[in-house]
Parts: sequence; C-alpha cells; structure tokens
Amino acid sequence: MRRLASVLPILDWAPRYTRGDAVNDLFAAVIVTIMLVPQSLAYAMLAGLPPVVGLYASILPLVAYAIFGTSRTLAVGPVAVVSLMTAAAVAPIAATGSAAYVSAAVTLAFLSGLVLLAMAVLRLGFLANFLSHPVISGFISASGILIAASQLKHILGIRAEGDTLPHILAGLAHGIGGVNPPTLVIGIAATGFLFWARRSLKALLRRAGLGPRLADLLAKAGPLAAIILSILAVVLLGLDRAGVRIVGEIPAGLPPFALPSFDPALWMELLPAAVLISLVGFVESVSVAQTLAAKRRQRIVANQELVGLGTANIASAISGGYPVTGGFARSVVNFDAGAATPLAGAATALGILGATLFLTPLFRYLPQAVLAATIIVAVLSLVDVAAIRRTFAYSKADFAAMAATIALVLLVGVEAGIVAGVALSLLLFLWRTSTPHVAIVGQVPGSEHFRNVERHSVLTSPDLLSIRVDESLYFANARFLEDRILAEIAARPALKHVVLMCSAVNMIDASALESLEAIAERLHSAGIGFHLSEVKGPVMDGLRRSDFFAHFKGRVFLSQYEAAAALGGAAGKPERPARKAQEIEVASSN
Amino acid sequence: MRRLASVLPILDWAPRYTRGDAVNDLFAAVIVTIMLVPQSLAYAMLAGLPPVVGLYASILPLVAYAIFGTSRTLAVGPVAVVSLMTAAAVAPIAATGSAAYVSAAVTLAFLSGLVLLAMAVLRLGFLANFLSHPVISGFISASGILIAASQLKHILGIRAEGDTLPHILAGLAHGIGGVNPPTLVIGIAATGFLFWARRSLKALLRRAGLGPRLADLLAKAGPLAAIILSILAVVLLGLDRAGVRIVGEIPAGLPPFALPSFDPALWMELLPAAVLISLVGFVESVSVAQTLAAKRRQRIVANQELVGLGTANIASAISGGYPVTGGFARSVVNFDAGAATPLAGAATALGILGATLFLTPLFRYLPQAVLAATIIVAVLSLVDVAAIRRTFAYSKADFAAMAATIALVLLVGVEAGIVAGVALSLLLFLWRTSTPHVAIVGQVPGSEHFRNVERHSVLTSPDLLSIRVDESLYFANARFLEDRILAEIAARPALKHVVLMCSAVNMIDASALESLEAIAERLHSAGIGFHLSEVKGPVMDGLRRSDFFAHFKGRVFLSQYEAAAALGGAAGKPERPARKAQEIEVASSN
Repeated sequence: MRRLASVLPILDWAPRYTRGDAVNDLFAAVIVTIMLVPQSLAYAMLAGLPPVVGLYASILPLVAYAIFGTSRTLAVGPVAVVSLMTAAAVAPIAATGSAAYVSAAVTLAFLSGLVLLAMAVLRLGFLANFLSHPVISGFISASGILIAASQLKHILGIRAEGDTLPHILAGLAHGIGGVNPPTLVIGIAATGFLFWARRSLKALLRRAGLGPRLADLLAKAGPLAAIILSILAVVLLGLDRAGVRIVGEIPAGLPPFALPSFDPALWMELLPAAVLISLVGFVESVSVAQTLAAKRRQRIVANQELVGLGTANIASAISGGYPVTGGFARSVVNFDAGAATPLAGAATALGILGATLFLTPLFRYLPQAVLAATIIVAVLSLVDVAAIRRTFAYSKADFAAMAATIALVLLVGVEAGIVAGVALSLLLFLWRTSTPHVAIVGQVPGSEHFRNVERHSVLTSPDLLSIRVDESLYFANARFLEDRILAEIAARPALKHVVLMCSAVNMIDASALESLEAIAERLHSAGIGFHLSEVKGPVMDGLRRSDFFAHFKGRVFLSQYEAAAALGGAAGKPERPARKAQEIEVASSN
Repeated sequence: MRRLASVLPILDWAPRYTRGDAVNDLFAAVIVTIMLVPQSLAYAMLAGLPPVVGLYASILPLVAYAIFGTSRTLAVGPVAVVSLMTAAAVAPIAATGSAAYVSAAVTLAFLSGLVLLAMAVLRLGFLANFLSHPVISGFISASGILIAASQLKHILGIRAEGDTLPHILAGLAHGIGGVNPPTLVIGIAATGFLFWARRSLKALLRRAGLGPRLADLLAKAGPLAAIILSILAVVLLGLDRAGVRIVGEIPAGLPPFALPSFDPALWMELLPAAVLISLVGFVESVSVAQTLAAKRRQRIVANQELVGLGTANIASAISGGYPVTGGFARSVVNFDAGAATPLAGAATALGILGATLFLTPLFRYLPQAVLAATIIVAVLSLVDVAAIRRTFAYSKADFAAMAATIALVLLVGVEAGIVAGVALSLLLFLWRTSTPHVAIVGQVPGSEHFRNVERHSVLTSPDLLSIRVDESLYFANARFLEDRILAEIAARPALKHVVLMCSAVNMIDASALESLEAIAERLHSAGIGFHLSEVKGPVMDGLRRSDFFAHFKGRVFLSQYEAAAALGGAAGKPERPARKAQEIEVASSN
C-alpha cells in the first residue's frame, strides 16, 4: 500500500478525506474556476490558438494531476510562459489559426508529456537543477515583458506581427496609425480596472464590511466582472461593428477526443521545444509546489511530480489541449482559498467543464482587448526587478547569466534565452573552478586552526609553507595548480617543507593526479619536502587506488595542526608573537 | 629589453650564444633533419597531400618558431595527429590530390595560425586546460590506431577508402584480393626493419663498440636507410613496373610563395577544424615543451607558445605548407641530441631546405609502402595502453571520458571524438559537483580537528549536528543540499543545534544562497539553531554583500571546534569516551 501510494499519491489522502476537506476544496474550486476561465481563454490566444483550446487544457489535465501529482494545492493548466513558448515553437511550423497549428500544439503537449514521463523513468528530475535561480528568474521576467508587449496590439486594436521585442515594437510603431478608438478605450479601461482590482479591491471590500472570504472571492472575480461588463458594452453598443475585435463563436460541448500527429518529421522539429517546455514547466511547477508545501509541512517528490505533469500533458493532448504546467498565481489562490486536497483541482475541472458546455456562447462578444488586458496584468506581476537588483549586488557571475538570459529572450527568443542562460551559468561555474582561490595559511594563535595569512593574524614559519587550495583538483585547474605552487615556492628560497592543505579538495581527477606527481617530483629534486594534510576519506581512497603513494615521499597528516607540529613550523613555536599577516608573508590570495 | 624579450624570446638567448651551443645545436640539427625528411614526406601523404608539401611545412615554420617560441628544444613541423585532422577537415571539401585540396590545406594552416594568434591576444591559452589528460591520451592513442590502420592499404598495395575504423577495415577486406606481392614484401620488410631499428639498433651499435653519439645518430638514421635501400631495390629491380606504387616526381626548388584562399564560405567551413587543430596542436606542443623544459629547469610561457605556434602556422601557409605543431618524438630526439637553443630548429630548417633543393629527384622511386611503414612505426608508439589501464583503475569518470573519446575517434572521426571527450568530461565534473559528498563530523579525541563519523573514532553529541558539505554550493546542488540537510534533521528529533561546516565550500552562488535562507528559516521555525563554521574569506565577503545576515539568526564560528565548544556539543564534554563512530551516529556518508 505504501509503495503503491508513492506512485499513486491519491491513495495517500483519499482514504482520510473528511467533510471539512470537502467544504474547503469546493470553495477553493469555485474561486479558481472563476479565475481560470478568462485566463484559459487569454493564454490560448497568447499561444496563437482558438480560445476554446485553453478551456480544453484546463479540464482533463487537472484530473490527471489530481491522481498522479504529489502537491495538495498545485493548480495546473495553461500558463503564460509555456503559452509563449508554445507559440514560439509552433509558429515556424504552421500558419496561426490553421488546423495544422492546432494539431502541432496538441502534438507538442503529447511530446512534452512523453519527455516528462521519460525523465521520470530515467530519474532525470535532477536536470532541472541545472537551471539556476537567476536564470529562471531572468527568463520569467523577460518573458513577462515580452508577453505584455505582444498583447499591446490587441489593446490598440491594430494588427502587428513579431516575436522579439524589437520586432514587436517596430510592428506597433508601423501600425500605430490604424488604432481603433473604441478598442483602445475598452483596452485601457480593462487594464486599469484589473490593476486596481488586483491591488485595492479586496481591501476596499473589507473596509465596506464584507467578510474576508467573500471579499476575496469578489476581488478574484475582477477579471470575470471585466469580461461581463465588456461583453455587455459590445452587445449593447454594437461595438463589434465599430471595429472592436471580438473572440467570435466558440464551439460549445465536451472537449474533443484528439490524437496528436505521429509524423516523425514533426516530432523531430518539435522535440527541442518539448524538452525546453518540459524543463521550464517542471521547474516553475516544482518551485511553486515546494513553496506551498513547505508552508503546511507537506512533501513534494520531484520524481513523482514528473509523472503528474507528464500525465497532465498527455491528458491535455488527447482532449485537444496544449502544454500545461503548475501555475504560480492560480496555485497561490487555490492555497489561500483553503484547498485541502487535489480534489479541489478535480472540482475546478468540473467547473471549467461546465463553462465549456454551457457558457461559451456568452463569450462570443468578448473583446480580445479584454483578454489582452487580463494577460498584461497577470504577466507584469512576473517581472521581478528586485531579484535582478539583488543578484547584481550579490554575484556578478550570477548576474551575467541572468542578464544574458533576459537580453536573449527579449532580442532573439525564449528558447535562445534559456539555452544561453544555462550554458553561460555552467561555463561561468567551470571558469570559477578553473582558477581557484589559493590561500597561504598560518595558525590562529591559541587554537589548532589554520587560516589565510592575509585575512587573519596568524603564526607562520619561514621553513614551512602551508598552502590551501580552495577547489577540487581537476583537469581544468591542474596546470594552474602546478604553476601557482611552483611560483609560490620559487619566491621562498629558505623553504624546507610544503604542506598542501586539502580541506577544500573534494576530488582529485586523473589529470590533477599527474600534476600532483609532477609537483612532488619537482619539490623533491629541489630538496623540499612535500606533504598533504586534511585529505578527505573519498579522496584518500582514490589516491590509494592509484600508484601515487608508490612514488610519494612526503607524509599525509590528519590535520594541518599535526603537520605544522611535526614539521617544526609555527605550531611548534607558540612563543612567536602574532603579527599582521602582511608583514610575514607575500600576498597570495586573489 | 626585458619586456621585449617576453614577446621575442630570441632576445633572451641570442646575446649569450656560445661556440659550445653552436656545436650542440648543429649536431642536433643533423639528427633531426635525417629524421624529419622521411617523416615530412610520410605525414604529407597521410594528410592526403603531395609529399613535397610536408617538406615545405618543415622549413619556414621552424624559423618562425625559433624566433617567437619559448621552448629551447621543441621541434615543430608536420605531426601525425594534426595530419590526420587535416585530412578529415579537407577531404569533404575537395578531391584528394586536386589543387583545391592543397589550397584548402594551406588555408587551414593560415586559419589555424590566426586562431592561435587570436587566442594569444585574448589570452585564451587556458582553454587548453579543458582538454583533460585522459581525453588527450585517449584521443592520441585512438588516432594512432586509426592512422596505422589507414596506412595498411599502402603496405598491401591496394586501393581502399575510409576515414573510420570500420570503413577502413571494410575497405581492406574488400580489396584484399588485389594485393600486390612485391609491395607487400617491401612493406613488411620496411615495417619490420623500422621496428627493429627503433627497439634494438642503438644497443647493438653500442655493443659493437660505437660511441653513444654515433650509435644514436646511426640508429636515428634507420628510416633513412630503409628509404635508400627501398629506392635502390625499386630502381635496380624495376619494381615500379611490377605494380609497386612510388612517390613519383617531386618538384625540386624553393618552397613556393603561397597565398591562402580568402573565400569566406571556405573559411567558415574550415573554421571549426582550425579551432580544434589549434587546440589539439597547442596542447600536444605545450605538453612536450613543458616536459623537456622541466628537465633543464627552463620555463615555457603558454601564451607566448600560442604566438610561436601561430606564426609557425602562418609561415607554413605562406610557403605552401599545411598545419604544423610541436612534435613529441622529434622534440625528444632534438633534446637528447643536445640542442641548446632554438637555433637548432633554424639549422634543421636549412637542412630540410637543402633536401628540398637537391634531394627530391632521389625520392622519385621511393615506394609509398616504405612511407606507410614509417608512419605505422611512428604512430603505434603513440598508443598508450598503460595510460588506459591506469585511468580505469583510478577514476571511472575519467575513464568514461577517455573511452568515449577513443570509441568516437575510431567509429565516427577525430573531431567528433575530441568534442565528445571534452563535453563528457565537463558534464561528468558537473554531475559530480551536483551530488556532493556530505559527512556528519565529530571531534577527533585529543585534538580540535573534526572528521567524518563514519571513518574516524570521534566525539559527537545528540544535541548538536555538525554537517560538512564537500562542495561549493551552487545552483546544481542547491536543492540537493536543502533536501539532504532537512532529511538529516528529520532523523534526529532531539536536535538543538545544526552547524554547517563550510571548510570545503569555496563559493555560494545566488541559488544556493536562497537554499541556505530556506534551510535557516525551516530550522528556526522548528526551534533548532542553525550556525555556520569555517566560512572562508571570499565566501564571507559575498554573504556580507547580500542581505543574508539581516535574516540569519545563528552564529558564524571561526572554527568547528569553537562552534562545538560554544554550543555545548562533544567538545564541551571531553569526558565522553571515544567510541566507534557507527555506534554513535546514523550512516550519512556516500
């Protein structure tokens, strides 16, 4: 039962389901449904798909995730960034609005599901770890800007193309003469109202004396209010005949049973995008799920999340939807509304199904500008300027990766941005490890502890040089190590012993082993003893497996203190006064 | 003067040149010339070029390196691996033997020179560090096998195509019926003689009473003897009319003044190969130069080597040659023969020039089978089975990169092999750092030193958990760290304090900083103190730049001993007896 529950998390919570849980779940489902209907229509439009596809993608996937996912509160469905990535992947393959376009999006969801399930089987969830926080944060901020910019044409009521920021802006500049005034009025009014509702409506309702739950519900219904009001305006004023573009007829009824294309050429074309969408969606979803789970002391199993999201995407594909993942805003809403179990998700699916069956005729006169306003208000909250500033202050390397991601997302495209960000952050890590920090260390007076002579008042001896290399020794820094140690030694003619303090050496690979042998031989032939201290267990195991100790003439000390004591360095002469390091030793830290 | 000498190393040794140096240099030049003439012809054939191109590549490049290079004894010129890489790069572009083929090889030398000079200007010599020893060793061994196999057709006297091992073997099997018996006899005799000369001739001559220098000179002349004997055999027995393929007419005279092609399309096609040839040639050359320089306490300046090899390649290109680098065998010969300065190289260039002017008519009747035998004997000495065995024993990760390199060189090609080897070794390094070794540590009795509870008899306390993470904390292991620490804590309900011992943490990036904050918050809310110890200077600087300490409620201790003493752990209770670690703590090391 326990093992089965790890594959089917539903078995974990379903047997203990209470009436209280049901009330909480239903309330959360109502709120999320109200929020999800306009978002689903809007994100489908962002992905270049008919609005109803967004509804299809919000039904079966929620049920699949409720069965297979480990988060109690994650709300899956179409999200902004994945919708943008879908558009970027499918647009080069088929004309927007064509049947081939929809079919490619369905296939992309299917492939993305397969990729996620394959990652689960191969236990490749760790791959997501290679997306660093700054790269993800930069990617999401830049995507938010890109998405908001791409929706401006709907607010202005003009036609414009473009999938990079310069193209989008050029397209807007080019089409600015054709602005449709009624559309612009609706668009600006809707955007302003939605911003206001998001920021101030709940507080206003509370001040007006409403209970917190009701105030919350009404505030969350802001987008729905905008939709209803704008539909009424279009119908009553006949705005569609005044050039306000509307959503048009949405087919009512159950989601269709769809089959993805099995054209191998199409699969090969979509595969890179499917991999990226899977990774990005997985990272976004797991981050949200973990943040929420931590608040209630629940646990997210990353590998099982791959199964949950994989089946959700396959469920989306076979019901005519497109790629989905766990969304940030709606999951927080679900959590805040008190969702207790994944049944809230299943109930939301029922709500969306109801909307799909019965409400679609109502959306016919919905202005596209209002959907665009919904998107703009949602994605601008993704732009995290504080994170950019924080990263800049903390680490230039992290900031470089983040800046490259942002620049490439805006100027080239989402896929180039994420790939460049990951590649750059890995290269910068390799670069840092290839030129490690090296410290000459001395004894902290009154202790057995050894620290950098440049930062601490420590005891040293002219006979003994203690060098701490702050990195694993591997091929990329093997030659650096050799050059550096030999240069330090060349500067100290009186030297009798060198101790390499290995407290920060977590690995010595075959290349570094050769360098170490070369150093030992050079020092030996110069009449200087070469010793190691604080070699960790796993590293020592490796050295013993090699023939290193067949040639090594030095000693290996358990601690740097023992080394200094045995070799008659500072540790043996505690009467030596503590002096400022700079007076004793040549600068060596960088 | 000192600064100028760093750019023109010739200014360093030329003013102090002695008569003794001159004698040594001239003797070395004679030996290297004798060795280089047949090798140059052979390697040009290996590269698919007319034999005389090998001679051209052995004149001006030697002079250029003598002026700009920092090694006193490196002998540059055509080498086996670079010749193979040249053939692999040029063969897809032009038909072997055509003028376009020669022109592409000349252009490749020019581009390779530009790449090396650009690397010098941008100080990119460190890039060569990313080629690990096992990858280089595997690459050279596999290239040796591939080259030897590719020459078998000349020994058998058949025509066969193929640039991967399976293709070569299939070609040989297909053509085996057309074996030319006289060619086979000459080929086997020459191969046998050359192996014997390399192994046993010098010792035999010494036993016959010759002086060491003369014995050495005569032994080195083995290939020359094989060439003279085989030419005589062909001429006297008319073997060329019996189907023995000969070198044919070689134009005598000065190297031509050649210009590389400036066709941008050709440049783009050749550029990746030029980059790889530059890197591989640079690594091979610098390794040889450093090995030899170390023996005489001389210094190689990697960046200046880029200039030396870059100008050598451009010199090769403008005199009708092809890519060159420092060769292993000939440099050792030059060194052993007593070469004192780069003037030995310049004198060798004069020797080859003499051969080009006056001796080429003699080579007309040289059987190709003898050149092939020269190549086979030279390259099989590159195959280093002991290194493969040693790497397998020491490190599975290094061996995996080596094995991938070997397999891809043999089965796909040299470029695929080296690229895959580098990529795999980097990925394996990233993989290792993404799942770091984590140790629970305790105090070594009678010292202030803390070690892994699983490997040492140490003192611990149930109140205090000391965790040492053996890796820099960065995005790839940030989540791992979080999961691991929280799991360790969940297993210890009585815990009051956790100390993260950071002696092996050389960097904390923005992602890991967030994880650290998350861990601190989780422990704080669970009523457990979270502290750091042995945080290095540069890491501490970074933490101070961030707002980490605005939220951090724990303490930062200089040493783990101070942490344990202050928090009332084992260190504060020295009366506790030392027990075997496994009895005290749950297993945690992996």
